[in-house]
Amino acid sequence: MAKVKTKKKDKELIILVTNDDGYTAPGIHALVEAVKGLGKIVVVAPDKPQSGMGHAITIGAPLRLTKVHNFEDVEAYSCSGTPVDCVKLAVDKVLHRKPDICISGVNHGANHSINVIYSGTMSAALEAAIESIPSIGFSLLDYSLEADFTATKKYARIIVEQVLKTKQLDKHLCLNVNIPKLDESLIKGIKICSQAYAKYEEKFDERKDPHGKKYYWLTGEFVNFDKRKESDVWALKNNYISVVPVQFDLTHYELKKKLEKNWKL
Amino acid sequence: MAKVKTKKKDKELIILVTNDDGYTAPGIHALVEAVKGLGKIVVVAPDKPQSGMGHAITIGAPLRLTKVHNFEDVEAYSCSGTPVDCVKLAVDKVLHRKPDICISGVNHGANHSINVIYSGTMSAALEAAIESIPSIGFSLLDYSLEADFTATKKYARIIVEQVLKTKQLDKHLCLNVNIPKLDESLIKGIKICSQAYAKYEEKFDERKDPHGKKYYWLTGEFVNFDKRKESDVWALKNNYISVVPVQFDLTHYELKKKLEKNWKL
Repeated sequence: MAKVKTKKKDKELIILVTNDDGYTAPGIHALVEAVKGLGKIVVVAPDKPQSGMGHAITIGAPLRLTKVHNFEDVEAYSCSGTPVDCVKLAVDKVLHRKPDICISGVNHGANHSINVIYSGTMSAALEAAIESIPSIGFSLLDYSLEADFTATKKYARIIVEQVLKTKQLDKHLCLNVNIPKLDESLIKGIKICSQAYAKYEEKFDERKDPHGKKYYWLTGEFVNFDKRKESDVWALKNNYISVVPVQFDLTHYELKKKLEKNWKL
Repeated sequence: MAKVKTKKKDKELIILVTNDDGYTAPGIHALVEAVKGLGKIVVVAPDKPQSGMGHAITIGAPLRLTKVHNFEDVEAYSCSGTPVDCVKLAVDKVLHRKPDICISGVNHGANHSINVIYSGTMSAALEAAIESIPSIGFSLLDYSLEADFTATKKYARIIVEQVLKTKQLDKHLCLNVNIPKLDESLIKGIKICSQAYAKYEEKFDERKDPHGKKYYWLTGEFVNFDKRKESDVWALKNNYISVVPVQFDLTHYELKKKLEKNWKL
């Protein structure tokens, strides 16, 4: 009997999951659970916490990739590098193609406003966007390892589905999503926001080691200067989930015009 | 005799100098020489190379600051942290006030186009800008430690003077300056530019260690997708010094409008 030709199966949707707290953090497990069933999930995440790594990449040392088995039914690897390294390595050496979406997090702690600059979670997402992979970074405003991810999981899935439906809106679609530390019933919904202008007023904590030599711990107070109701800080304070579309063209076009007009070169 | 009251001396102009190649790199010495006489120079720079560190900060470990004496007549410190840490620590624990300008570099190698994201040089400058300190990152398109900084020094001084004159143009003025690897006589001038859309096509170099285990070196080919004549890559190719004004509001306002219109929330 002649073989019946079957229609070629649609190329499977691949979801790359990474984070900056490391592959053992509860947040990344919550994120994997949130998107179960939406496609093939592959995890490539740092082998140790990488908070505050920003867009760091590993240049002076080689990277290691190790298969790990702590994600039930999900192919997963730990990587010795930064969150950005994880994305680069996943595409080139694990998936051998671009995933359909890259999601990063769920970060244990806020990444709204200026934090987007320091955040390893968001840098991983932005790296994917540079590669034209739609991406989302998720952060819960709760530093605790025992944080409750119930609401986060529900909304992360909604947002991932929205992005998959509307990814044609931008070739480099990248979202910074922050979720307030609230019971699901108190969350008012999702708000598309702008990055608030806020920063840290640094105060280093000066100490002396047992040999009498000074050392310094970075500490600081968060100060929000942004009064706009469309800002992510405003949305979070008012019980909304904030979604800030993020770009990697850092050109300050307004200042560019001013320089062209005012500089005598 | 009554003391003659002297007019209070104007507050001295302070120039903070940092980099990402470390305080021993020839580039930072060239930058210090370039601005000699424009104000009081203070150097706070990493104690080791920190290339590719992006906007990383040190959260999980304390920082050390050590007085160093390899800058003739210039107060200088090495810092155990990242370039961004250097700026934060300099303001809080060395200067005890904001400097009038922060200059970073001269980086040994290009930081045009997408490199601004990965660059420790530029992240230090951007950190200063967040703090409302006018800032400039300088990079020479020559990786060599024996690079010739003659043209760079000349133009760095011109640009620093321009910024000091026009810093009121933006509260968060930050410039990404790249200098082509050319003899001074061949440089056509300075061009205000946009960040080119370019990226690296990654190819990890896969090797095996003596125990048979795989490891990976990050390598990649630089690809420029930007055809605009106003881009920094174009300017550098055409023998201009590129100056890109840089911002830290990463909000993608255009995409924000599209999401507001297209997302059903």
